[in-house]
Amino acid sequence: MHNFNAGPSILPREVLQEASQALVNFNNSGLSILEIGHRTPLFEDVLNEAVALVKELMQLDAEHEVLFLHGGASTQFMQAPINLLNDNETAAYIDNGVWGSKAIKEAKLFGNVDVVASSKDKNHTYIPKDFIVNPASKYLHITTNNTVEGTQWHRFPETDVPVVADMSSDILSCSLDFNRYALIYAGAQKNMGMAGVNLVVINKSILGKVNRKIPTILDYQNHIANGSMLNTPPVFAIYVSLLTLRWIKKMGGVQEIEKLNEAKAKLFYDTLDSLPVFKGTVAKEDRSLMNAVFVMEDPALERAFLDQCKKENLYGVKGHRIVGGFRVSMYNALPIESVKVMTDVMKEFCLQYA
Amino acid sequence: MHNFNAGPSILPREVLQEASQALVNFNNSGLSILEIGHRTPLFEDVLNEAVALVKELMQLDAEHEVLFLHGGASTQFMQAPINLLNDNETAAYIDNGVWGSKAIKEAKLFGNVDVVASSKDKNHTYIPKDFIVNPASKYLHITTNNTVEGTQWHRFPETDVPVVADMSSDILSCSLDFNRYALIYAGAQKNMGMAGVNLVVINKSILGKVNRKIPTILDYQNHIANGSMLNTPPVFAIYVSLLTLRWIKKMGGVQEIEKLNEAKAKLFYDTLDSLPVFKGTVAKEDRSLMNAVFVMEDPALERAFLDQCKKENLYGVKGHRIVGGFRVSMYNALPIESVKVMTDVMKEFCLQYA
Repeated sequence: MHNFNAGPSILPREVLQEASQALVNFNNSGLSILEIGHRTPLFEDVLNEAVALVKELMQLDAEHEVLFLHGGASTQFMQAPINLLNDNETAAYIDNGVWGSKAIKEAKLFGNVDVVASSKDKNHTYIPKDFIVNPASKYLHITTNNTVEGTQWHRFPETDVPVVADMSSDILSCSLDFNRYALIYAGAQKNMGMAGVNLVVINKSILGKVNRKIPTILDYQNHIANGSMLNTPPVFAIYVSLLTLRWIKKMGGVQEIEKLNEAKAKLFYDTLDSLPVFKGTVAKEDRSLMNAVFVMEDPALERAFLDQCKKENLYGVKGHRIVGGFRVSMYNALPIESVKVMTDVMKEFCLQYA
Repeated sequence: MHNFNAGPSILPREVLQEASQALVNFNNSGLSILEIGHRTPLFEDVLNEAVALVKELMQLDAEHEVLFLHGGASTQFMQAPINLLNDNETAAYIDNGVWGSKAIKEAKLFGNVDVVASSKDKNHTYIPKDFIVNPASKYLHITTNNTVEGTQWHRFPETDVPVVADMSSDILSCSLDFNRYALIYAGAQKNMGMAGVNLVVINKSILGKVNRKIPTILDYQNHIANGSMLNTPPVFAIYVSLLTLRWIKKMGGVQEIEKLNEAKAKLFYDTLDSLPVFKGTVAKEDRSLMNAVFVMEDPALERAFLDQCKKENLYGVKGHRIVGGFRVSMYNALPIESVKVMTDVMKEFCLQYA
C-alpha cells in the first residue's frame, strides 16, 4: 500500500507500531495511555518531551512558546484573531487558496481585514509575490502550503509586520527560520501526528494587546500559563506527535527531512513534466513539495488512470473535489520508494495511452 | 491493576485491544486508522455508526441531533452560551462544584447569568434542591455529576425552561429521559472514550436564536449541517467512542450498565459507611455513583492508606488537589471485582488501624 492521502495521511510505520503498543500497555505501566491521568508523571513526561523536541527541531528562541491545543487549523482561524486583533485594528491577509479564504472569513469577525494579495484570478495556482503590506497592520497572515491547490511559499514574505502562518501541511518538512514568525499554527494530521491536536508556536511579545474578554479556553496566555494543561489535553494525539517528533529527530532533523522531501518532489515533478499525458496545474516556482496537483491533457483518461492507481495499491491520489484531477501528497513519512512506484505507473500509463 | 482514575480513566479491555489493532491495520484496509482520509467510506462508516448508536442508546427523538466535536467540556463552557444566549438575555446556572463554576464564568462573557442555587456554603458537598428558575431564563445549566466533589443529580431539575447539562462524567451511566434536555455535552474521556472529543446532543429547536455572529467552528448549526465534518474531525477519538458505544450495547445498553453501576456503588458506599476509619464527605442522597469521595477521620493515616493502595495495585485513588482525601471513580468500564478488592483493602486497613 502506497499512501498519498492529503490528510489525515501517512505516518511512519514505527510511530504507528509504538502507538499501538501504548494503547494496551504504556511504558510498562500496565495501563493504556488512554487510561492514565493527564496530571501524572507518566503523561507530564510525554508533554514535556514533545515541547522540548519542538523547540529543538525548530531551533526556537526563548521568546517562542510551544503549545499543544485541541482542534485543528479551523479552530486557529478564529483563535488567532481573537487573541491578536482589536475590533478597530486591521490585519493583512493573503488569499491564496481555500484555507486562506477561510482564515479571512473568521478574522473579519474580530477586526478589519486587508486582503493585500490574492491569486484568485488564476484559481490560486500561484503564490502572490508583489504585494505591499501596510506597516500599520497588526499582522500578516499566510498559508505556507496549500493542500488543495498544490502551491507553497518558498520564501519568507517581505514585510516588517508580525507574520502569522498556517503551517498545517508543511510544518517540519523544510528548514525555516521559525523564529521570524510571530505565530505558527499547524493541525497535526500531516507531518506532526494525528487529527485532534494543534501545534501552536507563539512569540509571547505579541500577546496581551487586545481589549476584548477572551473566553478562557481560547486565550493563548492561559494555555501558556498552564503549560498546555488548562484542561484535559488530547493525551493520545500529543503522544503520537511525540513519537513523530522523535522519528524526525532520528532521521536527522528538519534539514535531513528536507533533503528527502526535495528528492521526492524532484523525482515526481521531473516525471510529470516529461510525460505528455499529464499536466501540472501550478506555476513551477510555486509548486508544493508536499502536494503535487495535476490533471490529464485528456480528461476522458482520468478514470482509466485512477483504476490503474487502484490496481497498483496507490491510495489517495484523487484530487480535491474543488479542483478535480489528481493530487499526490508526499509528506515526511512517505518513502521515496512510493514516489518511484507512482512515477513508474505514470510512465507506463503514458506508454499505453500517449 | 485496578484503575480508579477520575479521568482520563479506565476503558473496556476489548475497546483498547481493538483500537490498538486499528492503529496498525484498520478493518483490513492495510492502513492505520490514523492514515485514512476522513471523507472516505472507511471513516464515514465509523462516524455514521457512532451517531446511530448514540441515538439508539439514548433513545433520542428526531428533534435531537448528535455531534462529535473537537475539545472537551471546557470548550463547551463557552460554546453553549455563544450559541444560545444573547448579550441582553439571562441564563440560569447552578453552582454546585468546580466545573459548574467554570461554566458560569464563561457564560458571563455572552450574557447575564443568574446563579439560582449554590452549594458553596458547604463546599459543594450536596446538590441544591429548593431553587426557583425565573421562567424568562433562556436556559438552566447544570453539571449532572461532579467529579471533584463526588455529588450527582439523581433527578431532573424542576423547571420548565430548556435544560443544558454537562454530563461529561456520567453520560450513558444511568437511565435518563435524554429527550428532556435541550443540550447535553460530554467530554468523552470518562464513559464515552478518550480525551479529545466531545459528544454534543442538541434539540435543534433551541438554535438560531442569537443575534451575534458566531465563529464558523463554534456554531452548532454549521456542525449539524456538515454532519460533524465541518473540519477534519478527531478521527481516532471518534473511533474509540464507537468501540465504547458498541461495548455498552453489548453489555445490554444503558439500563444494564446502570444496574452494574448501582451494584458497584452500593458495595462501595455500604463498606465506607461501615468502617469507622473512613468518612464520606457528601450528603448521602446526593452521592455520585461515578466518583466516591471520602477522607480519613484521622488525616495522619492518609499516607499509610495510600501506600497500602499502591501495594495492592489500586491506582488513581488520591483525591483531587482541591478537596484532598481520596476518590474512587467507578465508571462504566470498572469491573465490580475492582471495587471488591478496594473494599477488602479498606476493611483490612480498618482492622489494622481502628
